[in-house]
Amino acid sequence: MELKIRNLSISSGGPLVAILNEEDSVKLDLKALDRVKLKKGSKEAVVIIDIAKRSIKKGTISLFDEVINELQAKNNEKVCVSQEPLPQSLQYIKKKLDGGDLSKMEINEIVKDIVLKKLSEVEITYFVVACYINGLTLYESAYLTEAIVENGKKLSLKKYPILDKHSLGGIPGNRTTPIVVSIVAANGFIIPKTSTRSITSVSGTADTVEVFAPVSHPIEKIEEIVKKTNGCMVWGGALELASADDKLIKIEKALSIDPRGIMLASILAKKAAVGATHVVIDMPIGKGSKVVSKKEANILKRKFLQLGKLLGMELKIVMTDGTEPIGNGLGPALEARDILLTLQNKGPEPLKKKALILTSTLLGMVGVKNPYKKALETLESGAAYTKFKDIIKAQGGNPNVRVSDIKIGKFKSDVKAKENCIIKELDNKLLTSIAKSAGAPFDKGAGIYLNVHVKDKVKKGGILYTIYAERKQKLDYTLKLFKKIPIICEPIKNQ
Amino acid sequence: MELKIRNLSISSGGPLVAILNEEDSVKLDLKALDRVKLKKGSKEAVVIIDIAKRSIKKGTISLFDEVINELQAKNNEKVCVSQEPLPQSLQYIKKKLDGGDLSKMEINEIVKDIVLKKLSEVEITYFVVACYINGLTLYESAYLTEAIVENGKKLSLKKYPILDKHSLGGIPGNRTTPIVVSIVAANGFIIPKTSTRSITSVSGTADTVEVFAPVSHPIEKIEEIVKKTNGCMVWGGALELASADDKLIKIEKALSIDPRGIMLASILAKKAAVGATHVVIDMPIGKGSKVVSKKEANILKRKFLQLGKLLGMELKIVMTDGTEPIGNGLGPALEARDILLTLQNKGPEPLKKKALILTSTLLGMVGVKNPYKKALETLESGAAYTKFKDIIKAQGGNPNVRVSDIKIGKFKSDVKAKENCIIKELDNKLLTSIAKSAGAPFDKGAGIYLNVHVKDKVKKGGILYTIYAERKQKLDYTLKLFKKIPIICEPIKNQ
Repeated sequence: MELKIRNLSISSGGPLVAILNEEDSVKLDLKALDRVKLKKGSKEAVVIIDIAKRSIKKGTISLFDEVINELQAKNNEKVCVSQEPLPQSLQYIKKKLDGGDLSKMEINEIVKDIVLKKLSEVEITYFVVACYINGLTLYESAYLTEAIVENGKKLSLKKYPILDKHSLGGIPGNRTTPIVVSIVAANGFIIPKTSTRSITSVSGTADTVEVFAPVSHPIEKIEEIVKKTNGCMVWGGALELASADDKLIKIEKALSIDPRGIMLASILAKKAAVGATHVVIDMPIGKGSKVVSKKEANILKRKFLQLGKLLGMELKIVMTDGTEPIGNGLGPALEARDILLTLQNKGPEPLKKKALILTSTLLGMVGVKNPYKKALETLESGAAYTKFKDIIKAQGGNPNVRVSDIKIGKFKSDVKAKENCIIKELDNKLLTSIAKSAGAPFDKGAGIYLNVHVKDKVKKGGILYTIYAERKQKLDYTLKLFKKIPIICEPIKNQ
Repeated sequence: MELKIRNLSISSGGPLVAILNEEDSVKLDLKALDRVKLKKGSKEAVVIIDIAKRSIKKGTISLFDEVINELQAKNNEKVCVSQEPLPQSLQYIKKKLDGGDLSKMEINEIVKDIVLKKLSEVEITYFVVACYINGLTLYESAYLTEAIVENGKKLSLKKYPILDKHSLGGIPGNRTTPIVVSIVAANGFIIPKTSTRSITSVSGTADTVEVFAPVSHPIEKIEEIVKKTNGCMVWGGALELASADDKLIKIEKALSIDPRGIMLASILAKKAAVGATHVVIDMPIGKGSKVVSKKEANILKRKFLQLGKLLGMELKIVMTDGTEPIGNGLGPALEARDILLTLQNKGPEPLKKKALILTSTLLGMVGVKNPYKKALETLESGAAYTKFKDIIKAQGGNPNVRVSDIKIGKFKSDVKAKENCIIKELDNKLLTSIAKSAGAPFDKGAGIYLNVHVKDKVKKGGILYTIYAERKQKLDYTLKLFKKIPIICEPIKNQ
């Protein structure tokens, strides 16, 4: 059957979709989500169909940009439409739905079809929910990891060992990555670190590093940076290193679910895609972070280690304090200042200490003797700072930037203690909300600077924290909106 | 934040969706599937957002027809965009996902949001899959039925009793409805029958009735037809009687799953929406029909009866033979001929018998004595035929149509027995495929006429069945494609 093309002039962003008139769909014996092959001259595309009752004219087929490009088609041209069988992967999704275990081949087929945009969002949702309710076996998680890596791009460094780090996240101001990378690379080890931008947090590592240098580079450029400096600190998002994973995450976000089997695969796939052989995982525990209890942390740790073994990847899990921010700054520029200060041996002590623990774990895994001492020396001698500058330069940034060059929002408001008190608790979630309301991470200079941490004593009138914003209205709005102070203090009686 | 409207000039068909540029979404702190309120003057709309990386310009928001209409907006006008909380129903879907039982209020909220287009397809899929894997309790099915009815349009006949019939379907040529409706209505009982069009079958009841009269009428017109004639035979699809249901079905079709709890609710909601108080359900059993085994049928029967009780609806389940077609004709016009012949007492015996069993069950339920005899008399006396003509006339058709007026495809091909044999089996699925390939249901005159049924004897060269098509190329194509004969014969040795 021939139909006339209508160019929607918009990208579907996801699967290849075409929209048909209802009557034409009956003629072609098609229902929504069936597949058809479109043929125009020598060009072909298999697309998922959607059916519209009114808005699509009889005899026409509406196509999104992706399909238009694939067919090199123009508005009003004719295209030949014929039925195509449904992808085999739908059978495997059904199998998982009905409680079956999937084989390596079956999982690979599902992931391949996700990447090739052969599955609709509804179909991918079936898979995600089936994994969530019925769970994944350890083997299925391993197959999923491998399939995500296989069906994405890979960094090809041809070195051994390759080190990497991941934080389960959930707490603000936990910006250890640039320090870890600098120390590891300064010791001659390869660490090609890719990071995320913020999705719901105050700042992602990529947002913070961007204060120093561009973070969005093609794969070839990243390989070059790592060859030159042993390390990098780049944004993973643009690389399609594990593109199936990005699509699974989008679906998971819809109901804020985190199917454990997929989460594990998702994290390790991104490590495997850069060729990592030794990985340290920072697992913050505590209210407001992703893992709340020690018990939960132990279960997750065991699963990580088992999966690492199946994948032939050395893993160490470091359980850390997730009850309060690590550095003082929350927000890209404020965090960047903390990092630079730490590299210059003037930064917040908890950030330095945590970075050293993670780094020494990694160095220990690759045979460095007295790794903590070694890491400390590398940092305090300035060797790490020098390496940091090399990497920033290689990424196209200014290596000589000083702390005072990092612009912080010029509108600020101090929040002070109402009496002499001792700090009991910092509320990670509320701090995040306030910093975001002030403009972070989009306004790089916006955020919060903490003057206190848990157990600190503060006198009446002493500054608890300062809110920074780049725009006055953002600051005013934040002060109006958040009346509650995100820090719990216990009064101290005058002695 | 203000964005410039870009009119996509296309209907989304489903939920209210707007597409933003990625950078704007970060500024607004939004991720895909978050909700925003759009405000333009006094007009407002809450929409689900999708995020595009490239195809959407910064500072613009792309809107589908539904939203454009709601805002009465034009291209390039500005609209004010602000965050909206996620619908509460997502929490209830999450609860079902995690194995919880939902309350009446919670299910109603989910269904209401589906109808109001407040949930995305991904979110509805979460609900469908959760119901499929975790199942619905009997109470949840009842709540779902009530919610579907409450949140759809209803027929308001203000009569008691109101009779109805439903067939679980799956076998071709099972066109008892027009006969049942005619007999019941001729006996003075109200039977406002709505039917479906074919989705994957040779013909839906609505497709077949359309050979006699229009089947697509607004609710007020249907009420009028029923007031005049006691009955109707209309297409339910355009009425939005149970519109939530249509959306659930679309999602279920994606993976051809049939979550039992939803299926039961779906069927009974469509009966409740017309006000039915007494319903007979035709449950064909056998290979190729929806219910394959007697055991399965009994489980389903029990569930139907329990659910009917909770809903205050009288139900009877009639288990019937689902192993072969009931009438001789498969395809709209060929089935219409069977119906007319039956009303004139010249039709195929199995069709007549099955229609009488279903009708007498219904008549018995509302207190008619000797209901089978009564049904038979109504049919054989011509009273049912007279009533049929009244209904056809009321729906705008020609009541005086003769069998010879019903046009059958002029291209035909007989398939003959190769030897003397006895008919062992008819393959429902293959018969369906052949008839559809010949053009049914879109070409009303296309399909198959069966000369034999199971246990019939046929001589060498005798006609087994005839394929009809309205277009020669369709017939040629069908003959070329289907080499296998959908009838299994066992040779009879010459005695």
